Amino acid sequence: MSTKQRIAINLPVRSQAYEILVGAGTFASIATILSKFCPAHRYAVVTDDRVAELYAVRLSRMLHAAGYRTDVFAFTAGEPRKTRETWALVCDAMVEAGLGRDAAVLAFGGGVPGDLGGFVAATYMRGLPLVQLPTSLLAMVDSSVGGKTGVDTPAGKNLMGAFHQPRCVVIDPELLATLPDEHLRAGLAEAVKHGAIADPEYLEWIEESAHRLLARDTEALSRLVVRSVEIKAEIVQRDERESGPRKLLNFGHTLGHAVESLSGYTLLHGEAVAIGMVEEARLGERMGVTAPGTAARLRRVLTRIGLPTSIPPEFGSAEVIGWTRNDKKARDGRVEYALIEGVGLPATRDGLWGAPVPDEVVAQLFAGSGRR
Amino acid sequence: MSTKQRIAINLPVRSQAYEILVGAGTFASIATILSKFCPAHRYAVVTDDRVAELYAVRLSRMLHAAGYRTDVFAFTAGEPRKTRETWALVCDAMVEAGLGRDAAVLAFGGGVPGDLGGFVAATYMRGLPLVQLPTSLLAMVDSSVGGKTGVDTPAGKNLMGAFHQPRCVVIDPELLATLPDEHLRAGLAEAVKHGAIADPEYLEWIEESAHRLLARDTEALSRLVVRSVEIKAEIVQRDERESGPRKLLNFGHTLGHAVESLSGYTLLHGEAVAIGMVEEARLGERMGVTAPGTAARLRRVLTRIGLPTSIPPEFGSAEVIGWTRNDKKARDGRVEYALIEGVGLPATRDGLWGAPVPDEVVAQLFAGSGRR
Repeated sequence: MSTKQRIAINLPVRSQAYEILVGAGTFASIATILSKFCPAHRYAVVTDDRVAELYAVRLSRMLHAAGYRTDVFAFTAGEPRKTRETWALVCDAMVEAGLGRDAAVLAFGGGVPGDLGGFVAATYMRGLPLVQLPTSLLAMVDSSVGGKTGVDTPAGKNLMGAFHQPRCVVIDPELLATLPDEHLRAGLAEAVKHGAIADPEYLEWIEESAHRLLARDTEALSRLVVRSVEIKAEIVQRDERESGPRKLLNFGHTLGHAVESLSGYTLLHGEAVAIGMVEEARLGERMGVTAPGTAARLRRVLTRIGLPTSIPPEFGSAEVIGWTRNDKKARDGRVEYALIEGVGLPATRDGLWGAPVPDEVVAQLFAGSGRR
Repeated sequence: MSTKQRIAINLPVRSQAYEILVGAGTFASIATILSKFCPAHRYAVVTDDRVAELYAVRLSRMLHAAGYRTDVFAFTAGEPRKTRETWALVCDAMVEAGLGRDAAVLAFGGGVPGDLGGFVAATYMRGLPLVQLPTSLLAMVDSSVGGKTGVDTPAGKNLMGAFHQPRCVVIDPELLATLPDEHLRAGLAEAVKHGAIADPEYLEWIEESAHRLLARDTEALSRLVVRSVEIKAEIVQRDERESGPRKLLNFGHTLGHAVESLSGYTLLHGEAVAIGMVEEARLGERMGVTAPGTAARLRRVLTRIGLPTSIPPEFGSAEVIGWTRNDKKARDGRVEYALIEGVGLPATRDGLWGAPVPDEVVAQLFAGSGRR
């Protein structure tokens, strides 16, 4: 698949609609794409030092060659830096560089620069236009689409943030060439989630193609990105602000966020979500919501990809449950889970897309497994 | 005028439309108003310690009596605390209190709690519903209407923020009874601005009524609030995001923000805007944009109210110009001013609502006046 694909995100507010451009070579066309979708007087590239080392010179050269004034703001890579402090430092550096309301932000990198750069765009001088330019598989298939931006606080992930729709998302699978193996695997976890909540055939295809995907076969990766973006686009345009169907995308994320935080971010987000999906499927099976065998099915796919599938034994139930209560999905003192009835079958009862799960039931996951 | 007035703000996104309820006694009806316009599981009252001391017990009692769970988050009063640090502290305290996405924020107080509480609502867990409950005249006639939220940074005012429309604005002029004199005067500066940019008769009425307004005549203050809100509402609903006509509201604010920052916030915002309006009218007169005599006319009204009308002699032109360049209104390296052609006559040229003014012209304001 060498041709480029365009996927439209239609939103109730038409001015917020945007396109996702997927294709090998889109990065090389970035200047043309910006001039069409997000013309601005100056561009602020918000990225991390790892991505900057690999691509910042090339990106700056392309933009300068097209006559665009560009400044690069790079922070230390890693989820522990996705904080309000980093956000403040980047914003201060932008003020210092003289960037005004006629500037636009390019969030360039994996999920962290995407979320943090997006939050900078959402809040700098009350909002600048934003383009998402993801370089990790996780950001390509998931976090760059949907308008969520934010930072973590010591109390939990993404607790501060905003919805800020990009002007466009530019996805070039060729940028995956430099992605470390464990990040490639972690990105595949979110694709597995898309199969699990919406498309059993897609899940099967991922399982069959695991070898090619891990070998970075460009055709397979492009196909994966396109299908995942289609699924995510279909869901987010039905529910821009996560009041309904969008909650489906949280499958695996309630326990996932808890173990990710508890690990001190030594677990990658995708690794934590892989664990979260299997454990939440087990939870659903125990509650009679999820068809027996679903957790085993997910575990098989994820294991083939090389992802972890159970909560590390050093985490106790009380700690994990404590973290879930800080989650944004906690409502009315009970924690909401997005469960599935089976592969491709979201559990929606009484028109609700998330279900409160009592702490006791979560605690039972830990019982009889030698865990606390 | 004892009856209550309702002013509708219609916005292109209909779900963001809201009403402004003005009237003596609206504060006493707050529980009923919230249940109608902003029902929520819990309410977070964001306020400052001065307002909290005067009104928090009464507000909490009213809400508790109506069965609403309410937490009060109060920070030290004053513009110097309208920072990212205070924002982070308030948000952390809300997480600590267990507030989730089913909560709503009441921004309660003057411009500072309004802007900061609004920014908390805009960014807490990617956005909570917001009600503005202003207690200062400035907040009633100006900052509570229009959806602007934000915090200052060391580099300038409101540099970080977001547009976040409230569900409703509740204005009870009786709350002005406890407002210190200098804050009452400062609030009148924004009302003078409304007259200056949109309604010469209103400006005249303010001048004639200055004595009654300063004596806190409830009928006069209510009439002032209603007319100012009408003018502001008319402008902001034409231009939610300040791309066009809304820039008019920045009259007096480019030099105003500069002197406010330079004073270390010992000048109140309204005092700085009073200075800014007269100096920007002088600027316009020098440029041939503003009718001769306009600055003198504004100076007369503002002096009658007891407001300052010229840049303090200790501020040099280089310092003031330096601060204007950090302003959000700086574009393309030039600073944009919202000028008027005369009282009630905005200067709009070539369909533009703001005009770049070269630094040299600003510097001339200082020449020949014994100032640096």
